[in-house]
Amino acid sequence: MDSGQAQRIVECVPNFSEGRRSQVVAEIVAAITSVQGVKLLDFSSDASHNRSVVTFVGTPEDVEAAAFAGIERARDLIDMEQHHGEHPRLGATDVVPFVPIAGVTTEECVEIARRLGRRVGEELQIPVYMYEEAAMRPDRRNLADVRRGEYEGLKAAIGTPERAPDYGPAAVHPTAGATVIGARMPLIAFNVNLGTSDVEIAKKIAKAVRGSSGGLANVKALGVMLDDKHVAQVSMNLVNYVKTPVHRVLEMVRREAARYGVPVAETELIGLIPLDAVLDTAAYYLQLPKLGRNQVIEARIWD
Amino acid sequence: MDSGQAQRIVECVPNFSEGRRSQVVAEIVAAITSVQGVKLLDFSSDASHNRSVVTFVGTPEDVEAAAFAGIERARDLIDMEQHHGEHPRLGATDVVPFVPIAGVTTEECVEIARRLGRRVGEELQIPVYMYEEAAMRPDRRNLADVRRGEYEGLKAAIGTPERAPDYGPAAVHPTAGATVIGARMPLIAFNVNLGTSDVEIAKKIAKAVRGSSGGLANVKALGVMLDDKHVAQVSMNLVNYVKTPVHRVLEMVRREAARYGVPVAETELIGLIPLDAVLDTAAYYLQLPKLGRNQVIEARIWD
Repeated sequence: MDSGQAQRIVECVPNFSEGRRSQVVAEIVAAITSVQGVKLLDFSSDASHNRSVVTFVGTPEDVEAAAFAGIERARDLIDMEQHHGEHPRLGATDVVPFVPIAGVTTEECVEIARRLGRRVGEELQIPVYMYEEAAMRPDRRNLADVRRGEYEGLKAAIGTPERAPDYGPAAVHPTAGATVIGARMPLIAFNVNLGTSDVEIAKKIAKAVRGSSGGLANVKALGVMLDDKHVAQVSMNLVNYVKTPVHRVLEMVRREAARYGVPVAETELIGLIPLDAVLDTAAYYLQLPKLGRNQVIEARIWD
Repeated sequence: MDSGQAQRIVECVPNFSEGRRSQVVAEIVAAITSVQGVKLLDFSSDASHNRSVVTFVGTPEDVEAAAFAGIERARDLIDMEQHHGEHPRLGATDVVPFVPIAGVTTEECVEIARRLGRRVGEELQIPVYMYEEAAMRPDRRNLADVRRGEYEGLKAAIGTPERAPDYGPAAVHPTAGATVIGARMPLIAFNVNLGTSDVEIAKKIAKAVRGSSGGLANVKALGVMLDDKHVAQVSMNLVNYVKTPVHRVLEMVRREAARYGVPVAETELIGLIPLDAVLDTAAYYLQLPKLGRNQVIEARIWD
């Protein structure tokens, strides 16, 4: 019989400072997937940013090992002294977020991030900064703050107490620069198209629902115009679907839209959504007290 | 990179006429799970019914092979001449439904059922009747009709044209009797608790929403009283969630309840639900034009 023990899944989305030499990217991806049990979901390179993003998943242990393998390979293949691109960056492996997907908490992802950070600092001699949930100093939660001055600026400033790394040497690695490692919740990119072409209404709704201007925590929102469709849109990032679920955000948008006599025409989901967020949504609207993964046939098969 | 090709999953829920000798049930389950790739989800035995239900899943090919292995083993271990129990039955393996779960149509499950039926008839010399979606005669769609007279009655009547089996010999197997094989959609057992203790209202709503009395096709509904909770309930089986989705049923219940000034207090889901039904529900209430399996992180990992 099945134990009913859910699979533990962590996602890792490292960004590497190479988006032009496809052979280099392929070798880094190969190092990552050389760890048994790791599953590659996606990778994409951007030539103008000169940067690649790799998405892979697996158990906490496998994902941690695969991330280290990728960082080590990138150190050997990428030289920050030669690197140019439009996107801000500090190192060969620029940023490594760990994301809890199933059966794992954000706290466990913080532990993975810090353990990896220590190892990268000690074994690879690359200075490491912890960010977001894994930040060890409050002024390092925000990635943009950590990356200030980029590789070239950090190289000069890393000796100052303000820029001292959380792990590893207080000098940038001669080729690999520095690396930022952290943990964050899965992000849900969710847009609401309004039954109006008046972008001012979308902007007012965005201001009402986003946390920064008094609305819901964990919601980032902008009012934008979709020129091709001639439709105003509330474009949102939901950065913690557990504390601030999708349905609560949508219902607030619907309420705010109603005061202008504007309906929601349709919505769109950009990218992926965790199963738990889908289950919470269905449970809310069906008035089920709880809809668990163990009630979904496929999850019973897969978990 | 992942091909994006979804896994093909069929569920099979055979019922065997043995619910007391646990060693016999264990041997039948072992025969089923001896097929590589088949995953056992559940099995349960009922002593008074003297009957066991096994639930397993896998690819169409694996599930078909495992069902045959179970039927063959049951033929060797169960003697219908010695079998007594409260539940109606025709044979050692009494009934074998195939259920499409993912990436498979009902029509493909009909093909599996008929191919297996032919093989059981020819190789095991057990007469086989096809039922539900796989029925080859309209009067055999309904399982109760096929099982009329049970094993003892069929033994005498099987020589008549009316009871001629769809596959296999026109005589019951000396120990295994006869077997009923078919295909059906997954069934969703969904109950709605009303904000009233007046069971008459639940009965009126049930009559309005069920297909047999003019409501929605593929919905079976009864109004019942939950004595322990002092709550009236609309108890439903949704037998085709693709053609008649959960949200449409619930919205009709809410509308009908509103005419009596009664709210829906909460709902309950008994047993399992297919992922596609959850996705359809979330998409409807979120106003997403479509929410596909390929947008769910876990499905991307598992499929």
